[in-house]
Amino acid sequence: MPHSSPTVGVVGAGQLGRMLHQAAIGIGVPLRFLADSPSDAAVQVAPAFEIGSARSAPDLARFASSCDIVTFEHELVDVEALEDLERIGAVLRPGPKTLRLVADKLGMRRGVGWAGLPVPPWKPAKTVEQVLEAVDEWPEAVLKPSRGGYDGRGVFTVSGRGEAAVVAERLLARRVPLLVEPRLDFELEAAVIAARSPSGEIVVYDPVATLQVDGQCRQVTAPAGLPEGMAAEIVAIARRAVAALDVVGLLAVEVFVVEGSVVVNELAVRPHNTGHHTIEGAVTSQFENHLRAVTDLPLGSTTLVVPAVAMVNLIGDADGTDPRGRLAGALALDRSAHVHLYGKESRPGRKIGHVTVCDADTVSATRRAWRMAAALGCQVPEEVAR
Amino acid sequence: MPHSSPTVGVVGAGQLGRMLHQAAIGIGVPLRFLADSPSDAAVQVAPAFEIGSARSAPDLARFASSCDIVTFEHELVDVEALEDLERIGAVLRPGPKTLRLVADKLGMRRGVGWAGLPVPPWKPAKTVEQVLEAVDEWPEAVLKPSRGGYDGRGVFTVSGRGEAAVVAERLLARRVPLLVEPRLDFELEAAVIAARSPSGEIVVYDPVATLQVDGQCRQVTAPAGLPEGMAAEIVAIARRAVAALDVVGLLAVEVFVVEGSVVVNELAVRPHNTGHHTIEGAVTSQFENHLRAVTDLPLGSTTLVVPAVAMVNLIGDADGTDPRGRLAGALALDRSAHVHLYGKESRPGRKIGHVTVCDADTVSATRRAWRMAAALGCQVPEEVAR
Repeated sequence: MPHSSPTVGVVGAGQLGRMLHQAAIGIGVPLRFLADSPSDAAVQVAPAFEIGSARSAPDLARFASSCDIVTFEHELVDVEALEDLERIGAVLRPGPKTLRLVADKLGMRRGVGWAGLPVPPWKPAKTVEQVLEAVDEWPEAVLKPSRGGYDGRGVFTVSGRGEAAVVAERLLARRVPLLVEPRLDFELEAAVIAARSPSGEIVVYDPVATLQVDGQCRQVTAPAGLPEGMAAEIVAIARRAVAALDVVGLLAVEVFVVEGSVVVNELAVRPHNTGHHTIEGAVTSQFENHLRAVTDLPLGSTTLVVPAVAMVNLIGDADGTDPRGRLAGALALDRSAHVHLYGKESRPGRKIGHVTVCDADTVSATRRAWRMAAALGCQVPEEVAR
Repeated sequence: MPHSSPTVGVVGAGQLGRMLHQAAIGIGVPLRFLADSPSDAAVQVAPAFEIGSARSAPDLARFASSCDIVTFEHELVDVEALEDLERIGAVLRPGPKTLRLVADKLGMRRGVGWAGLPVPPWKPAKTVEQVLEAVDEWPEAVLKPSRGGYDGRGVFTVSGRGEAAVVAERLLARRVPLLVEPRLDFELEAAVIAARSPSGEIVVYDPVATLQVDGQCRQVTAPAGLPEGMAAEIVAIARRAVAALDVVGLLAVEVFVVEGSVVVNELAVRPHNTGHHTIEGAVTSQFENHLRAVTDLPLGSTTLVVPAVAMVNLIGDADGTDPRGRLAGALALDRSAHVHLYGKESRPGRKIGHVTVCDADTVSATRRAWRMAAALGCQVPEEVAR
């Protein structure tokens, strides 16, 4: 047998799986993917996969039977099927109870509140009437279907009853309850990643500052430049949440700072876009720590190894430029930038890679990272365009 | 098409191929391996390979036809077959002329001397008589078959005519000429890696200090702690050699310092054990720079990102301990050590992985790295045992 390490099954085979595989090669953990298609980003670079759907109970059962431990690259899974599998002995990390909570924005808000963590004001709505009641209280509101959205797909800002009624009717036609909250005028957005192993060990990365445009993460910088007390508060929130939600693996917590106070916006229980900078920027990457956690190995140091690091996403531009054709020109511009390409065709708005730059401060690192994104022919949002 | 990048074929699929694949995933270069066996270290983690021999002309021809660029993980290749393939248009990086020179220790010595670089005294020997003539001059001598050895396999130290005659007769029975040289009392061993692209761009990593035991690399540290002039001289040697030998890809140069002077001992034109520390210790790893070079992308910065780094090889111990069974215990000892496992069964004397530790100085880094090796149940040579 070439391996004595347990085989870790990864449900989903996108770029997160691809980067998990890179980390897995290092520490010798064999991975196996449940992929939608043989052209998925992770399947392009890994030898072991099955084609199947994360929403199909038979596919999940077949997949689980071929792995020692099953983990997840996204939350769009058939949680009931996972509950059945856990009952018959499958090792699922994180477990279905945690996945159920996080896959449903309403459940997540309840769970976070139950754990004593600060959340923004919110209301559940199953009918247009309930949405309108909320909008009477918060005329500038955000409607989010409680399940199925990610990356800003599924975040709808409305202004006033008229617009709210139209959007609510359309969204509720899908029979998924909505989360309604006031549009928050936050001072800044930040995020933090924690890892927890089955034996209860917890490590937390330094919080990062994030820039989201239309609900999509565009830029991450560390250190976050927060007041010391606030950074400690965010770390404490992550530490409490990862234990309260019984997470095994990674937990990413996205927060807003509103009027000087931290509130939890979103949770994810998997490697997260706000942790890609840890590949070059931290002693142990989020991907390696996810694998260490799900295989119950001691967790690695989360310390930053550089004074500052910036990560920007490569998002396909409207003109369809393929950044792979511009790689040589871009790499010539900056010999210390780290370009990550996911093997995906460029399409407008699609995440096809990221660039990480380490530097003496986040201002220089960010400027250099966006210069690379521009040289690669990718979208540079107005918010950062020089 | 999922990829617009050229497919790079790698002849050989051991741990160097495995680590090349890790780097290739990052920058989106698709690799394809020519492997001896489906259990090879690289094949365990990569989707595209063919089984075949690097010494078989038909296998090489078939393999080359399925790749855009062919590179090499070892030098034990049928160079004549490669010359034929190059003539009909195959893109081989490095080319067969370079491989021929480096695969033959006699050719290499001539090439290095021709490039005006310092070499130790040496003589070729095709007969026992020629060996004995050399031993008359150097009673403590080293005999090396000019082709086929690596990692100390193929280095024979002899003392006096009697022993020399016995060893020479045995070695010459294989009809491979020998390289004879005096046993050098070197003050230290060092190594340096350079990368060169087809367009002629060259970068050189900082020289490292190495510890070899029985001709096998056991420990690498950077910075090498050399006098400044000597480090600059070693870098200059690498820069001159990589151009003179028309290397495309990486060149590793192992040197001795004898009576204060640098002499070139060995060359390799591929990623090299003395460069594994660059994965965590340098801005761009040797593996990424090899891929950038062979695909003619601009080369990445070779600067160290940490004050000091130590790499020690994990070599199977006589008792057959599998380090994978001791991983949890070892990782608990040091949360910042980087353990790399190659997916190979542990056998006495076999390289099955390496550990890299970054620290404030090489003394601490080295001590911590050997502590991990010991905790993983691997050989710790007397030379470093505390």
